Amino acid sequence: ACVVSAPKNLQSYEKNNLQKSIQIGVLGASGYTGSEIVRLLANHPYFGISVMTADRKAGQSIASVFPHLITQDLPNLVAVSDADFSKVDAVFCCLPHGTTQDIIKALPGSLKVVDLSADFRLRDTAEYEEWYGQPHRAPELQKEAVYGLTEILRREIQNARLVANPGCYPTSIQLPLVPLLKANLIEYSNIIIDAKSGVSGAGRGAKEANLYTEVAEGIHAYGVTRHRHVPEIEQGLSDVTESKVTVSFTPHLMPMSRGMQSTIYVQMTSGVTVDDLYEHLKIFSENEEFVFLLEKGVIPHTRNVRGSNYCYMNVFPDRIPGRAIIISVIDNLVKGASGQAIQNLNLMMGYPENTGLLYQPLFP
Amino acid sequence: ACVVSAPKNLQSYEKNNLQKSIQIGVLGASGYTGSEIVRLLANHPYFGISVMTADRKAGQSIASVFPHLITQDLPNLVAVSDADFSKVDAVFCCLPHGTTQDIIKALPGSLKVVDLSADFRLRDTAEYEEWYGQPHRAPELQKEAVYGLTEILRREIQNARLVANPGCYPTSIQLPLVPLLKANLIEYSNIIIDAKSGVSGAGRGAKEANLYTEVAEGIHAYGVTRHRHVPEIEQGLSDVTESKVTVSFTPHLMPMSRGMQSTIYVQMTSGVTVDDLYEHLKIFSENEEFVFLLEKGVIPHTRNVRGSNYCYMNVFPDRIPGRAIIISVIDNLVKGASGQAIQNLNLMMGYPENTGLLYQPLFP
Amino acid sequence: ACVVSAPKNLQSYEKNNLQKSIQIGVLGASGYTGSEIVRLLANHPYFGISVMTADRKAGQSIASVFPHLITQDLPNLVAVSDADFSKVDAVFCCLPHGTTQDIIKALPGSLKVVDLSADFRLRDTAEYEEWYGQPHRAPELQKEAVYGLTEILRREIQNARLVANPGCYPTSIQLPLVPLLKANLIEYSNIIIDAKSGVSGAGRGAKEANLYTEVAEGIHAYGVTRHRHVPEIEQGLSDVTESKVTVSFTPHLMPMSRGMQSTIYVQMTSGVTVDDLYEHLKIFSENEEFVFLLEKGVIPHTRNVRGSNYCYMNVFPDRIPGRAIIISVIDNLVKGASGQAIQNLNLMMGYPENTGLLYQPLFP
Amino acid sequence: ACVVSAPKNLQSYEKNNLQKSIQIGVLGASGYTGSEIVRLLANHPYFGISVMTADRKAGQSIASVFPHLITQDLPNLVAVSDADFSKVDAVFCCLPHGTTQDIIKALPGSLKVVDLSADFRLRDTAEYEEWYGQPHRAPELQKEAVYGLTEILRREIQNARLVANPGCYPTSIQLPLVPLLKANLIEYSNIIIDAKSGVSGAGRGAKEANLYTEVAEGIHAYGVTRHRHVPEIEQGLSDVTESKVTVSFTPHLMPMSRGMQSTIYVQMTSGVTVDDLYEHLKIFSENEEFVFLLEKGVIPHTRNVRGSNYCYMNVFPDRIPGRAIIISVIDNLVKGASGQAIQNLNLMMGYPENTGLLYQPLFP
Repeated sequence: ACVVSAPKNLQSYEKNNLQKSIQIGVLGASGYTGSEIVRLLANHPYFGISVMTADRKAGQSIASVFPHLITQDLPNLVAVSDADFSKVDAVFCCLPHGTTQDIIKALPGSLKVVDLSADFRLRDTAEYEEWYGQPHRAPELQKEAVYGLTEILRREIQNARLVANPGCYPTSIQLPLVPLLKANLIEYSNIIIDAKSGVSGAGRGAKEANLYTEVAEGIHAYGVTRHRHVPEIEQGLSDVTESKVTVSFTPHLMPMSRGMQSTIYVQMTSGVTVDDLYEHLKIFSENEEFVFLLEKGVIPHTRNVRGSNYCYMNVFPDRIPGRAIIISVIDNLVKGASGQAIQNLNLMMGYPENTGLLYQPLFP
Repeated sequence: ACVVSAPKNLQSYEKNNLQKSIQIGVLGASGYTGSEIVRLLANHPYFGISVMTADRKAGQSIASVFPHLITQDLPNLVAVSDADFSKVDAVFCCLPHGTTQDIIKALPGSLKVVDLSADFRLRDTAEYEEWYGQPHRAPELQKEAVYGLTEILRREIQNARLVANPGCYPTSIQLPLVPLLKANLIEYSNIIIDAKSGVSGAGRGAKEANLYTEVAEGIHAYGVTRHRHVPEIEQGLSDVTESKVTVSFTPHLMPMSRGMQSTIYVQMTSGVTVDDLYEHLKIFSENEEFVFLLEKGVIPHTRNVRGSNYCYMNVFPDRIPGRAIIISVIDNLVKGASGQAIQNLNLMMGYPENTGLLYQPLFP
Repeated sequence: ACVVSAPKNLQSYEKNNLQKSIQIGVLGASGYTGSEIVRLLANHPYFGISVMTADRKAGQSIASVFPHLITQDLPNLVAVSDADFSKVDAVFCCLPHGTTQDIIKALPGSLKVVDLSADFRLRDTAEYEEWYGQPHRAPELQKEAVYGLTEILRREIQNARLVANPGCYPTSIQLPLVPLLKANLIEYSNIIIDAKSGVSGAGRGAKEANLYTEVAEGIHAYGVTRHRHVPEIEQGLSDVTESKVTVSFTPHLMPMSRGMQSTIYVQMTSGVTVDDLYEHLKIFSENEEFVFLLEKGVIPHTRNVRGSNYCYMNVFPDRIPGRAIIISVIDNLVKGASGQAIQNLNLMMGYPENTGLLYQPLFP
Repeated sequence: ACVVSAPKNLQSYEKNNLQKSIQIGVLGASGYTGSEIVRLLANHPYFGISVMTADRKAGQSIASVFPHLITQDLPNLVAVSDADFSKVDAVFCCLPHGTTQDIIKALPGSLKVVDLSADFRLRDTAEYEEWYGQPHRAPELQKEAVYGLTEILRREIQNARLVANPGCYPTSIQLPLVPLLKANLIEYSNIIIDAKSGVSGAGRGAKEANLYTEVAEGIHAYGVTRHRHVPEIEQGLSDVTESKVTVSFTPHLMPMSRGMQSTIYVQMTSGVTVDDLYEHLKIFSENEEFVFLLEKGVIPHTRNVRGSNYCYMNVFPDRIPGRAIIISVIDNLVKGASGQAIQNLNLMMGYPENTGLLYQPLFP
């Protein structure tokens, strides 16, 4: 505690989770998206964390799992089966895909749920089975689930009980492409996406491939043509074009903990210019708190959104006539996961979507 | 702007700098400590930035110099000579040593000043001349200056007009050592400090030695026995022991942008145990908002305070009987510079010192 | 020296530069490509370094500029104007573009020259002027210059006196594309190249943009559509297709010191399959010492060629029917610069091109 | 293969492992020290690899486990129990401690063995049991084992059959300290060692603590007072001083894959000066191929020995009268492991110890 009494400022928010108006449960608090929810909620005026689950770490303090969270006054971790949801209003579900469907199915129907896994992102359960190698275990919940790309589906999210929070790649890709496809400014064929992600996207699981020695000072593509975010991206784009979109998508693993860039190569509709694309993205972003179209010619850097919920984007002429290059950057753990999840729950609870999310980017 | 109206939350702070009760000037806003002041003040309830100077970038927007600050509504950069201080209540001075003395001398005497340079840290102007190779240009101001190690000199800071903000190394070293020396628990002879710093401590100046290619994937000591933070450390420790302390201090440059660790090897006073040290640091830190003594045996990591104003510390038995090892970690740009500067101005202005500083550490 | 007498092994090569059969001059030894030439030649059986120039560091030892070269017995740095070329057989020119043309023009015509700058890569001097903003200062030498992409122009290089060593991006891009275009297996329109480079490609000059703090933990594109390697790439591809090729080329700066990946998105000629591409690249690489086509499905990593002259490549099906994804990786300082330069001089001097170049990749 | 016929140069070494005069087995080739042996031997004139074991990867090619080794013509991995040692002359044992004792015990007595594990480093088997928590399983072999710190025990190593290769920390620490203690230039009490290591020292095992996201952009101490290299260091120093030495040793994990620095704080014997230390280390290193004492005042950087078998060191005055600061740097995988192992086997086989080890440091 501090020697000086707390003013009506951030601190009052932080210290008294239980006095906040909305009680939150974080399922899977021992992973990076879970801990990021906890970090971001520390200064949220209305959301207080009263339940945190982590089956393998049940009984431990969050500080023993994530020492950077030691400064907050938080409940200990419990097994999800032991969690008491009687006083909980909403949960963030940060669990692996597959098990998530069973767990959300078992939650009280009164709870608002934002699910950060992939389990409710694909409307077509057959497609889920194809890409995830197992049948969907909660098809009826799938019908109810709303896809949580806030800037695109704001109204639906406001009325949702279960929101499927988008993947990081799909967020960085759809934010610029959906408005441009809606306006028929770009062709939906031959969309080529070269994406680069920080390592935190792979989670905290101990895998040889994610060791410092295997990742530092190099780059490599992975999941070429087979990455599980492909159907999510194509679903989102196809909804706009009303015809099946097939994209070229190649993700790369980068030696950085946070950050994601999508470099998108598109064919403009005949007669359309890069200025047309720029003007349209300007209109789209003008009213968005978290989307920034940079000045013409300025290149977005992932470093400049680190730790924040912002998406920076810009569009450039290609040397090949009729083509354009779109670059968008986000922090994969914030706008690509936990930040957007809070943005969605803000809407679901009737608060301004930027509530508690105005963290500035951390640079350098 | 956001589609939803601003609630009484972070946003209201951010948007209307000019409506905040205290108007702030940031001198030298184009460097890392200056931009960090701007980042941290974004969510401060009372401090609003109305003047930012950067002589070589005068006329530019801060966003063109630091794109991560694009989200804030801030004045353009001006030359310090063109700055209008008529409506300014306090300034953070983030300029290089030397010139700083002249510039602060020229400021209206009514302004509260927190100086982040080394120009007013050494009470003995002869020592300043010895270590900085030039005579002190404002000896009278030096007499007035208060050393801004908040946890140690809180009362003096509350009444100060000009505060000399401590260096990053001296902060990480004095926070654990001053209480232990005060209590006569450790000897002041043979204090050996092996410190490790992130690269941002070297500033944003273009130097070959700080290129990515020269720093990544390696470590090296620098300024062995000659680092300019030595007299500041020895002044602080000597004040407590009331006899001249000479420390062994070896800083190392690390491949990380932020973060600082001091590993301190001390001789305990005869009869004193490591538990005695631990208990005393516990009492010291218990009432401190920003100082955390970790549980016994838990090792502080710089990553766990990144981006925050916290200092984590712990003490360990050495294999050599009678000796102990103290480890303290901070973010060199926050508790080691801009965060502590805001903590100090909060006190000087009569606000709780934690006001606007409760950013959680960013991990990973 | 070693306590044991030197055997007929690596050491004998290293110690007696002057006794080696070919005497080498390194012009611009204080940059990264120059120091890499010196590193690689340490174990070359026939090439000995007798002259090293660096105008701003004239008089200094190479070890004072590059401490990692302290182990070799090398001459001190001299200004190029003071260099004695009377006993020199060949030079590697590692100077900035522009000045290079004057300096090579002034060299004795008897010297074999491998130029690592961009000054003699573009046959069309008008194109040089367009992209480099200054007229070509040695058009007659340009006529004589041979482009040094070893695997493609081996015979011409063997008979050349002046070789223009390719840029790093053009090397990684042309090695897979030239054979495929020659065989008419891919279309030359809509070739989209997303390239990623380590920071050493930017040289050792002190620039803010290349500071550790500006590069670490992030990625950004640069020189979008305007990178100076574009005309070199298009020249090389147009030579094969016999019609003007316009490529989409977007380079990205990565937080790694060495390494380069080009991810290339191509349209296959109608009826052609990815297997056809694979089989053709297999035939191309089978007889190449330094080009490896990985097993089907195996993704090249830049880490796996670090410090070596090898190029790893592979080809993958795209989700978009008729398209393929080609990935090639090199070390930008070795196969992308100094290693290929030595490979070329080996040929020019009648030695096997792999002589002294069989360094294994350094991993991790 | 190369289009040009192979000269009597590096290549001939590489290609025909089986034609080399000494046949080598590498036990545990799927770890970092094993793969480093393979990398370094690629250009060794006399040592050819004919057996490589890796129980869990038995049947696979080394290239599938370490793609950077694809360029060499090597046998597939086999289980150690299936290995045919009939044609093998010597083995490098790169296995975990514990199992190593059983495996070496079971090897044909005719084989020369260099063991890179900790299993034979401690002469006192009781001490082994104390620090490794299990009884020594081959005490009789322990009697025969020679400690392989080449520069200090060269003669014993030349006549050894089983060499216990030193740990990385003990190598970097003993190389400067042993000569100084032998000459009574420093006190053996109050030796304080602050060491920093790259992550590869932790091996390739999948551990959460070694993930990129857990290691990048930060530093932390580990194993404070309890690191298993302590008894090895104290054994080596005590042998010289002929009285039990107790050191203060604090290792730190750094965000770098390779490299190790030991910063050593010592008390000089009364009347001794830093110049005396420097002159003595100069004499010690003058005849050593792999040990370099830098010019006075020049600070060793780990980057400058990366990938090489060199140790750079220097000595500096401390601010505390009578004390000195010694800094030594090595590549933990080369001089700290696999490079020194080859240096030792060279001696055991009667070859110059530098044979095949003259790789230059890789910088940047």
